[in-house]
Amino acid sequence: MQYPEPIARLIASYMNLPGIGQKTATRLAFYTIDMKDETVNDFAKSLLSVKRDLTYCSVCGNITEDDPCEICADTSRDRSVILVVEEPKDVMALEKMKEYQGLYHVLHGVLSPMEGTGPEDINIPSLIKRLENEEAGEVIIATNASTEGEATAMYISRLIKPAGIKVTRLAHGLSVGSDIEYADEITLSKAVEGRTEI
Amino acid sequence: MQYPEPIARLIASYMNLPGIGQKTATRLAFYTIDMKDETVNDFAKSLLSVKRDLTYCSVCGNITEDDPCEICADTSRDRSVILVVEEPKDVMALEKMKEYQGLYHVLHGVLSPMEGTGPEDINIPSLIKRLENEEAGEVIIATNASTEGEATAMYISRLIKPAGIKVTRLAHGLSVGSDIEYADEITLSKAVEGRTEI
Repeated sequence: MQYPEPIARLIASYMNLPGIGQKTATRLAFYTIDMKDETVNDFAKSLLSVKRDLTYCSVCGNITEDDPCEICADTSRDRSVILVVEEPKDVMALEKMKEYQGLYHVLHGVLSPMEGTGPEDINIPSLIKRLENEEAGEVIIATNASTEGEATAMYISRLIKPAGIKVTRLAHGLSVGSDIEYADEITLSKAVEGRTEI
Repeated sequence: MQYPEPIARLIASYMNLPGIGQKTATRLAFYTIDMKDETVNDFAKSLLSVKRDLTYCSVCGNITEDDPCEICADTSRDRSVILVVEEPKDVMALEKMKEYQGLYHVLHGVLSPMEGTGPEDINIPSLIKRLENEEAGEVIIATNASTEGEATAMYISRLIKPAGIKVTRLAHGLSVGSDIEYADEITLSKAVEGRTEI
């Protein structure tokens, strides 16, 4: 005996999500059957809505309902600084800080020769074009501190420095509140390298 | 800055699922944005479909597209045995075995004084009614080997034994292929208790 068709299809749909295997998908599908009609309707609607109502900002590549996005359209922001991140989630994280007043550029990935991701596959060409047209004096590169993130930062830096634009990278070091004892060696060596006078 | 409304709503929807918190929900929502239109449409459709196209069998309480369900409607099955399980998932697990030819009864829960679940809250009354009308000679109780599962088995047994119906319980013992060394004490004591002559 197979699962009834509607459950089997829902299990298959849940299994399309990352980190969800057969067992979890089955559990979620049976849980869904017992959820309120309204909750499931809202769920289905919000799934369709993210595909229909969201788009990428034609300027910075961030995810948005309106093009250009809220940040690019905000004339009160400092247009001389562009902060480059890997993913839209990073923009949200940085905006939570409420201190940065410049603009963003979302790459949607990093350079990865292993996975065949070259500069044309991520938003690097649009960044270069943007720098040619806009009056940005500084580019802050905030890719993650992974091998690919570092390589992408180096690549972008070499590409735009000749144009006389200041290129900076977010500081790496110990997290605030963390113990030296538990820090990994790379973080520690970055922390020593980037030490400041007090 | 907040997440755009459509993402925020999808994150909230994912968070309604069991075991999915804010971080996982956010990851799933951003993953959904990058999924194919078709896949997301199918997902939304299958969500609505499980609520619309599935119902509980009026005879055994199993989840089904047609009422009565495939098993209850199958005249080739042995109508003298009813196997009582906690959840529809258990029916699927037992059917995979392909050996049992009798009928089922799905309780949709277990008795739990701690959570206020009494006999009227699960499918016990419908089981009693069914036994009054049908010619079942044996009831196999296959609730889980938890405290609540055992208590539910005892409760049902005391209720229907006086009517002269044979009541049995699935055997508990060592899993096939498992090591005695790693078995818990309760399983071991059940295995000794239920030993068979060879």
